[in-house]
Amino acid sequence: MSERTRGFGSDNHAGVHPEVMAALQRVNVGHVHSYGDDPHTAEAVARFRAELGAEVEVFFVFNGTGANVTALAALTRFYDAVICSDTAHLHIDECGAPEQVAGVKLLTVRAPDGKITPEGVAAHVAGRGDEHQVRPRVVSITQATELGTVYAPNEIRALADCAHEHGMYLHVDGARIANAAVGLGLDLREITGDCGVDVLSFGGTKNGLMLGEAVVFFAPELAAHYRRARKQGMQLASKMRFVAVQFTALLTDDLWRRSAQHANAMAQVLAERVRPIRGVEVLYPVQANAVFARLPLAVIPVLQQEFFFYPWNATQGEVRWMTSFDTAGEDIEAFATLIETTMAERSLS
Amino acid sequence: MSERTRGFGSDNHAGVHPEVMAALQRVNVGHVHSYGDDPHTAEAVARFRAELGAEVEVFFVFNGTGANVTALAALTRFYDAVICSDTAHLHIDECGAPEQVAGVKLLTVRAPDGKITPEGVAAHVAGRGDEHQVRPRVVSITQATELGTVYAPNEIRALADCAHEHGMYLHVDGARIANAAVGLGLDLREITGDCGVDVLSFGGTKNGLMLGEAVVFFAPELAAHYRRARKQGMQLASKMRFVAVQFTALLTDDLWRRSAQHANAMAQVLAERVRPIRGVEVLYPVQANAVFARLPLAVIPVLQQEFFFYPWNATQGEVRWMTSFDTAGEDIEAFATLIETTMAERSLS
Amino acid sequence: MSERTRGFGSDNHAGVHPEVMAALQRVNVGHVHSYGDDPHTAEAVARFRAELGAEVEVFFVFNGTGANVTALAALTRFYDAVICSDTAHLHIDECGAPEQVAGVKLLTVRAPDGKITPEGVAAHVAGRGDEHQVRPRVVSITQATELGTVYAPNEIRALADCAHEHGMYLHVDGARIANAAVGLGLDLREITGDCGVDVLSFGGTKNGLMLGEAVVFFAPELAAHYRRARKQGMQLASKMRFVAVQFTALLTDDLWRRSAQHANAMAQVLAERVRPIRGVEVLYPVQANAVFARLPLAVIPVLQQEFFFYPWNATQGEVRWMTSFDTAGEDIEAFATLIETTMAERSLS
Amino acid sequence: MSERTRGFGSDNHAGVHPEVMAALQRVNVGHVHSYGDDPHTAEAVARFRAELGAEVEVFFVFNGTGANVTALAALTRFYDAVICSDTAHLHIDECGAPEQVAGVKLLTVRAPDGKITPEGVAAHVAGRGDEHQVRPRVVSITQATELGTVYAPNEIRALADCAHEHGMYLHVDGARIANAAVGLGLDLREITGDCGVDVLSFGGTKNGLMLGEAVVFFAPELAAHYRRARKQGMQLASKMRFVAVQFTALLTDDLWRRSAQHANAMAQVLAERVRPIRGVEVLYPVQANAVFARLPLAVIPVLQQEFFFYPWNATQGEVRWMTSFDTAGEDIEAFATLIETTMAERSLS
Repeated sequence: MSERTRGFGSDNHAGVHPEVMAALQRVNVGHVHSYGDDPHTAEAVARFRAELGAEVEVFFVFNGTGANVTALAALTRFYDAVICSDTAHLHIDECGAPEQVAGVKLLTVRAPDGKITPEGVAAHVAGRGDEHQVRPRVVSITQATELGTVYAPNEIRALADCAHEHGMYLHVDGARIANAAVGLGLDLREITGDCGVDVLSFGGTKNGLMLGEAVVFFAPELAAHYRRARKQGMQLASKMRFVAVQFTALLTDDLWRRSAQHANAMAQVLAERVRPIRGVEVLYPVQANAVFARLPLAVIPVLQQEFFFYPWNATQGEVRWMTSFDTAGEDIEAFATLIETTMAERSLS
Repeated sequence: MSERTRGFGSDNHAGVHPEVMAALQRVNVGHVHSYGDDPHTAEAVARFRAELGAEVEVFFVFNGTGANVTALAALTRFYDAVICSDTAHLHIDECGAPEQVAGVKLLTVRAPDGKITPEGVAAHVAGRGDEHQVRPRVVSITQATELGTVYAPNEIRALADCAHEHGMYLHVDGARIANAAVGLGLDLREITGDCGVDVLSFGGTKNGLMLGEAVVFFAPELAAHYRRARKQGMQLASKMRFVAVQFTALLTDDLWRRSAQHANAMAQVLAERVRPIRGVEVLYPVQANAVFARLPLAVIPVLQQEFFFYPWNATQGEVRWMTSFDTAGEDIEAFATLIETTMAERSLS
Repeated sequence: MSERTRGFGSDNHAGVHPEVMAALQRVNVGHVHSYGDDPHTAEAVARFRAELGAEVEVFFVFNGTGANVTALAALTRFYDAVICSDTAHLHIDECGAPEQVAGVKLLTVRAPDGKITPEGVAAHVAGRGDEHQVRPRVVSITQATELGTVYAPNEIRALADCAHEHGMYLHVDGARIANAAVGLGLDLREITGDCGVDVLSFGGTKNGLMLGEAVVFFAPELAAHYRRARKQGMQLASKMRFVAVQFTALLTDDLWRRSAQHANAMAQVLAERVRPIRGVEVLYPVQANAVFARLPLAVIPVLQQEFFFYPWNATQGEVRWMTSFDTAGEDIEAFATLIETTMAERSLS
Repeated sequence: MSERTRGFGSDNHAGVHPEVMAALQRVNVGHVHSYGDDPHTAEAVARFRAELGAEVEVFFVFNGTGANVTALAALTRFYDAVICSDTAHLHIDECGAPEQVAGVKLLTVRAPDGKITPEGVAAHVAGRGDEHQVRPRVVSITQATELGTVYAPNEIRALADCAHEHGMYLHVDGARIANAAVGLGLDLREITGDCGVDVLSFGGTKNGLMLGEAVVFFAPELAAHYRRARKQGMQLASKMRFVAVQFTALLTDDLWRRSAQHANAMAQVLAERVRPIRGVEVLYPVQANAVFARLPLAVIPVLQQEFFFYPWNATQGEVRWMTSFDTAGEDIEAFATLIETTMAERSLS
């Protein structure tokens, strides 16, 4: 299998944005205190406050599962449950960490396009509320969703209202929050704190960082138990400056926006380029940096010989194509041409 | 408080070794598969096999707690216990992660110099072995210990024999394994696999990495459950190449040894330099890169105004001075002189 | 609210069968060893082996949640999942104990009549099987189901085959296993071990015991980790003889069958008696000792003034009527007459 | 091995007190609501309030491990620790349930006579209190201790003061609280709530119940999370009346006191009877219903042929003799005579 340098496997197949790498170099001077008690971490926190509000509490962790699970651990007691979609990363791709590490039960809502609604949440808060049942305590949504769709501000607000009405918090798994904001043409704050979001897992890795996610609490009191959740959840970096400074870079000169805009634009180009090809069906609205499509089963391995990407539902011919900050227009064109050619050859034979 | 650029707070107050930083830059090209299915990770594993034996299984994680806890999770069932010293990082400084995440009970052995013995272990394996009691399944030691002492090969072998005799594994928390090897004048293999060690948390961060530890299983079958322990333990990096390549750098041209030799040598110089000062008592054998000392209580804050370091037992006047790969001879000299001067002024007053 | 002596709230609202009470008295003589190492426990185990097969391993616990959760704990590792219906007691009514105590993730299958099928299971075993996902390890069904329906032997066999084909075990939550057997006109063994069931939570409390459930492993090796699962799960009775002897009574002169036959027959009588009443809809096949019905909302509190029972889906007018070993024909008649009268008055007004 | 009807193995080798058995019979009439919402449970709670104070909250569970662990779960968060003696049942004999089910870390204090002191506690609250360390949240003592000794009121008060001063609660594992009260000649309240105890596991099984323990909170707000801790901890009996009424019996006509007085008196008789025998050493103050003694190793199995009892420290010749509510004076005399004879024969040979 000979593969191109850049494929469409995942936005985490890309490397580190040069501005991030430069920031890492810049702070590699002398000794600083460990575990976040250093000026570089303070600067990164200040950047977040400038972006999301002066009152937010911000903590840096290693990866997305770590961000989600430690946030949920901090917000819940031993008998609490978290309501999420049945396609949520939390439910599907975290190997039981929410249950085992945060000690929460997940209650899933069917979400064919990746998005849940207050109606879906309602089914789980209609319980008797007695001691035989867990207490739904957090609603967790993914923004952009695992299917490349994006919650509009009014949808988030409705979920926040529903959550708060039932004594719950709204958590956003924002592994691709930048792509969502860009997709909506809004600022980060407008789709989080301004919509009633309580806690945000702010994604960095998929948007050009080497590694690192931030957990943002929009009300300081929600962070009361977080430091120990992070430490016990094994997400506390000793040389914290090297995680924190990546976020400083991301929040400098709108790097987060520039990178996400590029990735999203590439997804749009790809979707529009393949949509007219007979036999290719684009499956969901393309609102962030993912294109889901359905292809004839036999075509998939042919394409994969040149460009790596993942099947999404292998038996149904569904595939996922992710773009990233470094996807080039020529990658899209070469890939789309390959699809075109392969489909054409197929219809001839 | 004005502090010097470099203090003696911890080896994780230091930054990233230039050779490690260069390696990070080098692999920042194009797309590669995530989660470790990439050539850079394969190369790092190959380096470990060259160093520790062709049969070892190696996995990279974010930090030391993550390495220890996921290793223990993979080796144990729900009713298992881990025997460790009462000064172990596992017991004292991991905020209950072994209990909460690995689901093990810790059984502690008193260890005034940080080292446990087969006799200490024996007390915990003398139980009735019935269903009312946990099953001791792993002995975990720290090398070099939290007190800067080092287990000799025959001590490790004796613990491994004791562990194996009782159906247990020997785990080494090697956050400072390089310092221990250098302190003993031995290769890494000679103090791990060759002594019967089953699993090693191989420390990188404290020896000049940006972040990263490796979990090494000396028998492949012990790794059977590890991949999911790492994922569930939230220690699986998506852009794995950037963790792995740091180890490639560490295992290239003996960087691990050069860095540890320097740090250890600096600790020796410091110990020898302060030992003659009246009123300063060096507390344990200096066998790695830590010097523990007892000082008059009043002197400590005076010294800390210029050089950062931690009290170890604040009420007893015990302090810990750590050296690192970038400690300079002039740092030692300036610090020792400051101690000398401060103590002299004190005896005059 | 004046209530009759006996209502239709639950089979656990009933007391203790006189033969069980007599057995408790009988063994209350002298000292015996605790924790099950006594002749009365041995006798109860022998009864089970006579009923279910010489090779079964049997353990006694306090309650149904305890039986289910300790059984699952014994069968699974930290990354394992259990597939069950979305109406399962395990999922709905055990306050997260499966997740928190057994450390499993639950994967639910939609089951409008309480029963799952191999097709429903298949959706959860179609995952990628990689480290990002939990491993489905057990299929758990409830027999009779929470909705009063009963799996036929061929349905159980099909689920067992499906489970085994995918490296899973089949667990049966048999809180009402006696009612299911009687409903099918079969022996206990014919609907458990003979159908490929691996582990059974054998219900006692709901069939006339004071308290107690048995966990039955149909292959001894499956019980390897059970004793500690029971102890750690806080289900190990010290004065075990008083739990065990209740099962001896239940398995003597087919008390289990006599009691279940009576309860099931009463449910049939009730269902047939109310079915013709206009405005009353019996909702599921009545195959055990539960009758689910839909009633006008206003009628429910009127009936509850005299006979206690639970709403099942309060907003939909769905109610549950359970019968038990001590339900009397006159209870049924009085209750049916009350329904009849109330409904008639209502249609007049 | 031919054994007497009654031995000295444990107070849980005894059966059920006749008054308790009669109470069980008495409430076996008709249907009542399950899970504690019944008049018999209300009556038992009222008895406790009469005994311990009108403000106490009382809940019934199945066994001692269940009482301890659910109480601790209700009082703690995910990062909390419990300080107890190194001989505590919690630490030694609960198979890791505190860690696995309550999610707490245990910090042990050396206690040669089974009792801990504020000084012992102090060592564990002297930590840095930062996120790297667990938070000591509960001090748990056993009364009477596992070694048959008893905390005096002033000792309990000192521990309560110490606990409260450091933001901790004082929990008492009172599996043998009745024996302790009787040993001290005090009422139950005088050694619990009056001394500052926050939560009590009130033992029933070892004092003549069939099974059952009560968890007593001396301040209602401490019980806020308890119901779900009990349910999730699988300690919620459905036919609760049969657990609760046993406590009603125990608290009627001072049955708890009569039974404990008898058991304690028998222990005194036994201790005084064997103390003069040459070669027999009584090891701890006999303050409750246990006698610990050291015997020549060879003598132990000879005695065990006739009377069952447990070695405590097998290699040291230490044994434990427990008396119970039904121990007869003739049992003591026969046993003591056997010891006398055996020791005499031994010194002759």
